Amino acid sequence: MRESGPSPTGPTAGTALLLRLVRDGRPRTRAELAAESGLARSTVAERLDTLLDSGLLCHTDKGPSTGGRPPSLYAFNPGARVVLAADIGATHLTAALTDLSGEVLAEENVSLDVAAGPDVVLEELCRLGGALLDRADRARGDLMGIGIGLPGPVEHRSGRPTNPPIMPGWDGFDVPGFVGGRLGAVTLVDNDVNIMALGEHRAHWAEAEHMIYVKVATGIGSGLIAGGRLHRGSQGVAGDMGHVRLPHGAELPCRCGNVGCLEAVAGGSALARRLTEMGSPVRTSGEVAALARGGSVAALTLVRQAGRDIGEVLATAVSFFNPSVIVIGGALSLAGEHLIAGVREVVYQRSLPLATRDLRIVQSRAGERAGIHGAALMVVEHALGPAHAESPVPEGLPVPIR
Amino acid sequence: MRESGPSPTGPTAGTALLLRLVRDGRPRTRAELAAESGLARSTVAERLDTLLDSGLLCHTDKGPSTGGRPPSLYAFNPGARVVLAADIGATHLTAALTDLSGEVLAEENVSLDVAAGPDVVLEELCRLGGALLDRADRARGDLMGIGIGLPGPVEHRSGRPTNPPIMPGWDGFDVPGFVGGRLGAVTLVDNDVNIMALGEHRAHWAEAEHMIYVKVATGIGSGLIAGGRLHRGSQGVAGDMGHVRLPHGAELPCRCGNVGCLEAVAGGSALARRLTEMGSPVRTSGEVAALARGGSVAALTLVRQAGRDIGEVLATAVSFFNPSVIVIGGALSLAGEHLIAGVREVVYQRSLPLATRDLRIVQSRAGERAGIHGAALMVVEHALGPAHAESPVPEGLPVPIR
Repeated sequence: MRESGPSPTGPTAGTALLLRLVRDGRPRTRAELAAESGLARSTVAERLDTLLDSGLLCHTDKGPSTGGRPPSLYAFNPGARVVLAADIGATHLTAALTDLSGEVLAEENVSLDVAAGPDVVLEELCRLGGALLDRADRARGDLMGIGIGLPGPVEHRSGRPTNPPIMPGWDGFDVPGFVGGRLGAVTLVDNDVNIMALGEHRAHWAEAEHMIYVKVATGIGSGLIAGGRLHRGSQGVAGDMGHVRLPHGAELPCRCGNVGCLEAVAGGSALARRLTEMGSPVRTSGEVAALARGGSVAALTLVRQAGRDIGEVLATAVSFFNPSVIVIGGALSLAGEHLIAGVREVVYQRSLPLATRDLRIVQSRAGERAGIHGAALMVVEHALGPAHAESPVPEGLPVPIR
Repeated sequence: MRESGPSPTGPTAGTALLLRLVRDGRPRTRAELAAESGLARSTVAERLDTLLDSGLLCHTDKGPSTGGRPPSLYAFNPGARVVLAADIGATHLTAALTDLSGEVLAEENVSLDVAAGPDVVLEELCRLGGALLDRADRARGDLMGIGIGLPGPVEHRSGRPTNPPIMPGWDGFDVPGFVGGRLGAVTLVDNDVNIMALGEHRAHWAEAEHMIYVKVATGIGSGLIAGGRLHRGSQGVAGDMGHVRLPHGAELPCRCGNVGCLEAVAGGSALARRLTEMGSPVRTSGEVAALARGGSVAALTLVRQAGRDIGEVLATAVSFFNPSVIVIGGALSLAGEHLIAGVREVVYQRSLPLATRDLRIVQSRAGERAGIHGAALMVVEHALGPAHAESPVPEGLPVPIR
């Protein structure tokens, strides 16, 4: 879904611009809004009325008095509308109602196999959506939109999954048509790692222009933030790293059909299988992480080596992409510092020195909240533009116009 | 250098917006400009006067008559100002005067060792700049700016080279201060591969949102276009791929001090050395390419294998970045289809199938012109914004404002 398009006409142009300005959280006077937007004062006045009527803006405390009547301040009202955000995993469905800042108002979590197919899973999502609206005492008409993360490749433009390996029956399914049709709201769909990257970035690393978020769980995938925006790539599959071939992993078969993929060597399933073979029967990434946290030498050794393997693939990505932050999330990242230590060991050694000079490699701060937060903000930013927007036009000509 | 900043105030905002619109090459009426920009008609009229005065806009043929007097059409005038564009390589300096569409008006090419140091090289550039202005009969005041590509890492924000390996004396040198001070114009500096990527994209692949341009010559580097913009990364070193370690290259020492780098295995110098050892004495990438074009089996075999090695590193980049086009340029790409065939062989086999579904891997079309064209457009787009600009504000709210 392109966040940009033909030049706007009519009243929405100024409206969107004013909204972007106040979404940084600082209330402003009418005069400030005119100065910062470059819009005529009369236009600003007109647009402010529209926005106050819509509820998206509200009056707040008066500004400082300059002798006469203190000027009114206008602020963004995140409670004006709500978003239904959903994070669908292999075996769970989390749905939350959030306000326009991504704050959760109500939430539901159910165990559900994504392989049950789109009808079952999305019907359940719609049911939960209705229940959450009721619980939060909001009308369906209050929905600004619905954001959904799915555990597989998604063509973001159409909202349809594309050959998702663990989602039988979902290939090409019209998710926005189904959910949007039932709940009557714009529906955006993306890969789960992309929404986690967006959520983690907006909540904790908004100042970082370029970031890589890596989810290490059963599978391994990443989401890229380039210039503050989610970089989805041409087919919407940017950030794939689980199926990059490792030189020393040649013999291990991967669920994708190839051999030696990073995921087959360092993913949570691979580690669980090896621990089981070594006499510590575990099944999931979370159990592997728990074993490592508990001090199991076998688990610690495997997790550290998984970090090194992931670091080997990330080293190439760092040289190409030159991010300032790499965030490691997902169930296996809960193993403590061991996973990240392995990643750091290899990335700092292998990547171009200039590219790692100021590079931070850190554990996810948003944790499990990243997905829901990102799904909600995907909708809000689609509707209102990013909060810390780039200047809509160049800052001015650096050379005088003669 | 950030191409964006705080919100604009005053007249430049509307001016820049109108300029962006007409830079797609289609002349427009005043009414069309008002509709497309969302600016008030009175504002449009005022800004158009400023732009006509500046020469950046001009009147052109009348529009279709609708009965009364046919309306005036306004068009971008690329001849209003000029740009000095320079492509500095290891042993050459190309300088050109271009118009605002990047079209070359006059050009000079001299042999010059970049290792002679910044004073010698940049003094020569300034001399050439003056001579080119004279030859094209343009005044210094006509310079919109100066764009320079250097064969090493550059901190684009400051225009200073950062530890450039083949440029002794250049580390941290204030290139914009020196050149801009002498010629009296804004000076932007970037890595040579970045300006080639920009030039190639703007001239031939402008419709591709995400592109990787690979320069294969003595060294191997790449430039990334993400969402239509040059992706420079946090330290400005994005696109490095020459120093990614190849699994089978462990024994070969690289000029960077490490061993097994892609450049040490597949760069033009490495191939020339091996051909020389095999009894075909050659020195440069160009000579290697000529030998391959001439049908030398040894050269063809080496070039094809170099393509595979490059493909191995690109396969990871393709999975991460998901471009729609990979362009292969540089002196070694003149070896014909053999280099690209090797790249394709590995990338199509190794990358995620979805990421290669619509991926094109092609030879550079701009060839040697890419650098000069990119250096010129770097300056023009910095001053006026990209020609095919994204919408300055979201296209409107996808849900009605209530």
